[in-house]
Amino acid sequence: MALSEFELIDIIRQECTLASADVVLGNGDDAAVLQVPPGQHLVACTDMLIAGRHFPLDTAPEDIGWKALAVNVSDLAAMGARPAWCLLALSLPSPDAEWLRAFARGFAELAVQHQIALVGGDTTRGPLSVTVTALGLVPAGSALTRAGAAVGDRVLICGRLGWAAAGLSLRLGGALAAGASDPAGSPAAQWIDALNRPVPLVAAGQALRGIASSAIDISDGLLADLGHVLRASGVGAELRVEQMPGHSELRQQLGSERARDCMLAGGDDYALCFTVPVERVDDALAALQASGAGQVADIGCICAGSGVVVLDAMGQAINLERRGWDHFG
Amino acid sequence: MALSEFELIDIIRQECTLASADVVLGNGDDAAVLQVPPGQHLVACTDMLIAGRHFPLDTAPEDIGWKALAVNVSDLAAMGARPAWCLLALSLPSPDAEWLRAFARGFAELAVQHQIALVGGDTTRGPLSVTVTALGLVPAGSALTRAGAAVGDRVLICGRLGWAAAGLSLRLGGALAAGASDPAGSPAAQWIDALNRPVPLVAAGQALRGIASSAIDISDGLLADLGHVLRASGVGAELRVEQMPGHSELRQQLGSERARDCMLAGGDDYALCFTVPVERVDDALAALQASGAGQVADIGCICAGSGVVVLDAMGQAINLERRGWDHFG
Repeated sequence: MALSEFELIDIIRQECTLASADVVLGNGDDAAVLQVPPGQHLVACTDMLIAGRHFPLDTAPEDIGWKALAVNVSDLAAMGARPAWCLLALSLPSPDAEWLRAFARGFAELAVQHQIALVGGDTTRGPLSVTVTALGLVPAGSALTRAGAAVGDRVLICGRLGWAAAGLSLRLGGALAAGASDPAGSPAAQWIDALNRPVPLVAAGQALRGIASSAIDISDGLLADLGHVLRASGVGAELRVEQMPGHSELRQQLGSERARDCMLAGGDDYALCFTVPVERVDDALAALQASGAGQVADIGCICAGSGVVVLDAMGQAINLERRGWDHFG
Repeated sequence: MALSEFELIDIIRQECTLASADVVLGNGDDAAVLQVPPGQHLVACTDMLIAGRHFPLDTAPEDIGWKALAVNVSDLAAMGARPAWCLLALSLPSPDAEWLRAFARGFAELAVQHQIALVGGDTTRGPLSVTVTALGLVPAGSALTRAGAAVGDRVLICGRLGWAAAGLSLRLGGALAAGASDPAGSPAAQWIDALNRPVPLVAAGQALRGIASSAIDISDGLLADLGHVLRASGVGAELRVEQMPGHSELRQQLGSERARDCMLAGGDDYALCFTVPVERVDDALAALQASGAGQVADIGCICAGSGVVVLDAMGQAINLERRGWDHFG
């Protein structure tokens, strides 16, 4: 079915346009006009997903739509921001209305959950790629950053580690084709779901404002992303692998070594990794519980120096050679 | 030269990072934190350039960098906004430091001209494409839109029409290879320059706030883009081809018919098309002159009805079959 660019944009608009009080002028002009409430800072990020690189080529369009927005919203969550608006640039090999409706449904499903208005975009013919820009709001001065971790702080994780990587290895290994379904609730089904439908921890990020000393979302793997925090903060960290969330389920299915690889170097989980001064840990846990955030785990502490040491269950340092996934690696 | 994603981002940052008072937290965290001044609305848009579709494959990387930012800044200009910040998502077939430095230089050249801070981005390996999100500011309530054209208003153009299309046809026809140089100032050299280095009319857009009844930038061709204004405003327009800017130069080189095609249907010039109530035309011209905007031309008027009628030099309606370039066409 041949569609013009304008028809494609209309399909996306139909699925995704939300009325929002702070949208002065939405989709359909040269640019959107938006109202940032007084006392709020604007928080902005952009992330691109390329077919075959950031998701398997046979990924369902609903999942691509969801994920393209989710990975950006996760960055806002890691800043403690409330998502408000987004823009979408979509390059498609051919104008396929059915594909596009499914994509827009997945995208809109997450947008509606967080009341994110799609306020602009661009579609063109080209290799399949999706670039989303997410715009959020945070009370002035209260954004969470990567730079505040201090010696003695605890390192906590909200969400799970390594499940998306386990799901990806299942998909790439051919053990599970797109659309094939393991029994609901099985580990394989949960991992594939973690890969295709990452849940940005928006409420958790906001709950941690004024409590966490630093925060980051885990997109490229724990070691790589915590590494950013450590460099920005000028500190090191000591982690305990058996305290990592999701560890026991992964180990049971994959064995110790693969489980560890997935948790330390696997990306795409969009768990929130944050640091908290020891005396604020109870506050953090209470705030997270009140926000409805799920599993929270204390995985170690910030120490002087640089880099990460990971201890195994016996307290022995693990030889870390793997690094986070480099998109040009 | 193999570079990691982080090294690539560093190269872009080195060229493009501008200190800016309203950037609370720039590049290098999960997201940027930005301060929108009181009384200002945020203006946001995104546009994607795909190699081989939006620019010839052998386009110089400096020109790709400039143009990717320019086409977005042009959208801000058409809203009457002042550009403030941008985000860049870049997909590159291979990590090439030299290419990237050249790209970043072109991008930064325009960014510095308009004091636009690059506050975020994403790089990945993939087919060459560049997606920029531009963020600007406009005094609350004063954005120019597509919806205000009224019967009797004059239709004016700031900038030139059809030169980029003429340049593209030279490039695609092989008459002029990348890097080949016609005598400076020759028509061919000017057209190629119009194609590779479009100048977003930022000062002109701001000068028209409170004066123009509607505005749009010409990215897809005059007929297509003015068509958006007419539909949004519920009116029609009558234009005179011989009053169009750049017409005589184009006709002299290309003949009447090709010149007309370039001016009516050629995209990529990023001229500003705007409407002004008759009694404000002198104000508009004075404001544009004071802003340093170049050539301004009155090309016709808004009339009741819908669609565009274009009259030739004899006052005869031209049979319009061509339409603006559809990116999925």
